[in-house]
Amino acid sequence: MQIVIQRDYLAQAVGQVSKAVSSRTTIPILTGIKVAATSEEVIFTGSDADISIQASVPVEVEGKEIVKVVKLGTIVLPSKYVTEIVKKLPEPLVEIEVQDNNVTLIRSGSAEFNLNGLNADEYPKLPQIDDEKLLSLSSDLFKSMIRQTSFAVSTQESRPILTGVLWNLEQSELSFVATDSHRVALRKVHVDATEELEIKNVVIPAKSLNELNRILHDEDEVIEIVVSDNQILVKADHILFYSRLLEGTYPDTSRIIPQSSKSQVTVETKQLLQAIERASLLAKDMKHVVKLSTIAGDRIQISSNTPEVGKVVEHIHAQEISGEEVQISFNSRYMIEALKAIDHPEIQIGFTGAMSPFIIRPTENDRILHLVLPVRTY
Amino acid sequence: MQIVIQRDYLAQAVGQVSKAVSSRTTIPILTGIKVAATSEEVIFTGSDADISIQASVPVEVEGKEIVKVVKLGTIVLPSKYVTEIVKKLPEPLVEIEVQDNNVTLIRSGSAEFNLNGLNADEYPKLPQIDDEKLLSLSSDLFKSMIRQTSFAVSTQESRPILTGVLWNLEQSELSFVATDSHRVALRKVHVDATEELEIKNVVIPAKSLNELNRILHDEDEVIEIVVSDNQILVKADHILFYSRLLEGTYPDTSRIIPQSSKSQVTVETKQLLQAIERASLLAKDMKHVVKLSTIAGDRIQISSNTPEVGKVVEHIHAQEISGEEVQISFNSRYMIEALKAIDHPEIQIGFTGAMSPFIIRPTENDRILHLVLPVRTY
Repeated sequence: MQIVIQRDYLAQAVGQVSKAVSSRTTIPILTGIKVAATSEEVIFTGSDADISIQASVPVEVEGKEIVKVVKLGTIVLPSKYVTEIVKKLPEPLVEIEVQDNNVTLIRSGSAEFNLNGLNADEYPKLPQIDDEKLLSLSSDLFKSMIRQTSFAVSTQESRPILTGVLWNLEQSELSFVATDSHRVALRKVHVDATEELEIKNVVIPAKSLNELNRILHDEDEVIEIVVSDNQILVKADHILFYSRLLEGTYPDTSRIIPQSSKSQVTVETKQLLQAIERASLLAKDMKHVVKLSTIAGDRIQISSNTPEVGKVVEHIHAQEISGEEVQISFNSRYMIEALKAIDHPEIQIGFTGAMSPFIIRPTENDRILHLVLPVRTY
Repeated sequence: MQIVIQRDYLAQAVGQVSKAVSSRTTIPILTGIKVAATSEEVIFTGSDADISIQASVPVEVEGKEIVKVVKLGTIVLPSKYVTEIVKKLPEPLVEIEVQDNNVTLIRSGSAEFNLNGLNADEYPKLPQIDDEKLLSLSSDLFKSMIRQTSFAVSTQESRPILTGVLWNLEQSELSFVATDSHRVALRKVHVDATEELEIKNVVIPAKSLNELNRILHDEDEVIEIVVSDNQILVKADHILFYSRLLEGTYPDTSRIIPQSSKSQVTVETKQLLQAIERASLLAKDMKHVVKLSTIAGDRIQISSNTPEVGKVVEHIHAQEISGEEVQISFNSRYMIEALKAIDHPEIQIGFTGAMSPFIIRPTENDRILHLVLPVRTY
């Protein structure tokens, strides 16, 4: 293999695929990044067996030469070194040439690196996924769905299935659900897919989704998602992102979501968020427990009390309060994360009793729902 | 004590003095910030016994009321909580009122914190330092002196005296010296002080200097420095910074600085720095060893070789090379840190043999000197 490539394209591709490479892998070849030069493009691949990322650099972009492929071929270069090298190259053009024994020359200006590479034949093949179950989505919307749900997954490995986000697609409605058994985050959107296309019990590791969120551009582009039995493939501009799925049956969260409520409170999202953040400041040693009570008129009280440290009380104005009086305690961390995930200015909270889960929804969007279990206080 | 204070002034003062508070102290009262309201100002104090910081907020700034002191008094508030609280207060005005049993009300808008305080009588007195040995310096210059030397101190506690920076003042020339026994950083400046004023063997912990560097404003203001037998006091705008000195005798580094050299190389600082950074990329597993050689004509070669990983070679242009041929190996980390500390575009390096320390100086400033010991390679 011998190519001359523009440094910025090289650095971007290497940076993207290196995110899939783990330094703790037990498979030596996976510590490397595979580079394959074809006559149309140079393909970079990184993988940790769970996640694989492929980035391609075309030989030409808008009539401008990006890569000159002098000799076709493949090589695997150690990710740890090559990611650092590409950031520090002195000149805008980089020559990469595989020599004897997989030793690879990387030359830019007067700087010459001779890096020991590995034979690319040993690099594992990426899964073959046919485009049977395919749906399209704007990357913006997809990223916001990840952001609004993945924070609620479990971080404990005792129930591995809860470390993932459940995807469902039925009648062109795609939903993401996450729960750690103390709270639920749910986000639905309408997507462009045939009505017959169904996705059921597909659970994607939150780690994969967070990585995907980082790697996708912020600009609005259309991405394609392909789901197979044990893999998902996301196709974006010059990027292929593969992730394995989690095995097991995801719990049915719809059964714990109350269908009606005894009390409803409508408040400004930001005002409630900030009051809870303040109340939680002194509650660190009390498992972050904060209390919400409705009080006469149109106000609610947010408070916390940690005898050794002190207490906080704050009243905020509610847009509307209806139904029974409310006195409920909850882990402020769950509430803060849910409120931060809601981009709408106003929310309605529905309560069904001091020991029953309560529901938070934006008043202007019924496709977003957060559920929080209260905590018992004595 | 009862005051009404502008939130931004409160947050700034608390933020500054909290930097001296350690969460690992064994003295309970030192986990707090002392607040003292007098008729002219409110004084905030934080301390970990080694470093103490005092910030004062005057009742009036340029005719504008900053603090209204309703009732004089003092209180100690837990630093861990009060620093978080002041960042999250909702309104620009804050009322602080000490109630029974040192319980302190902090009120802003409708948010009310009741924080358990401690009796300020138990708070240790700050050292009394008379203004006998006093020198003035611009904060800009002082900060650059810290930045150009403190990186070279030892981080190992086996020789505690080397974890500090040595100050000397003689004939109005102030010098800072730091060494970890593998390298030396030296910076001299002329200061406004009487010729009789001398400072000898005063060693200030690098930790204190780095904290001071963070706390001093970036604007150019004049600071005053007072040195006593076992303490240093730095006075800046509304800030007093106290640090203990290190005990012991600092080694005489002047003896290891060669007075002449066998070879001289003049190069652009940035070009050399970047070449060494590149060469060091592959040398992580080889104790960061990088080699510098002069080659025929006006070039030098920077290289490294780690058999398992690969090798790097780069040639850079030298402004001037004179004297004997050079072939020397060194820890690239020491060289990179020295070169980063030099703000001048061009340096001269003086060599006196492959196993002797070499000297780096900016060509345009003879008051800056870095010494690096080479390493033996086989």
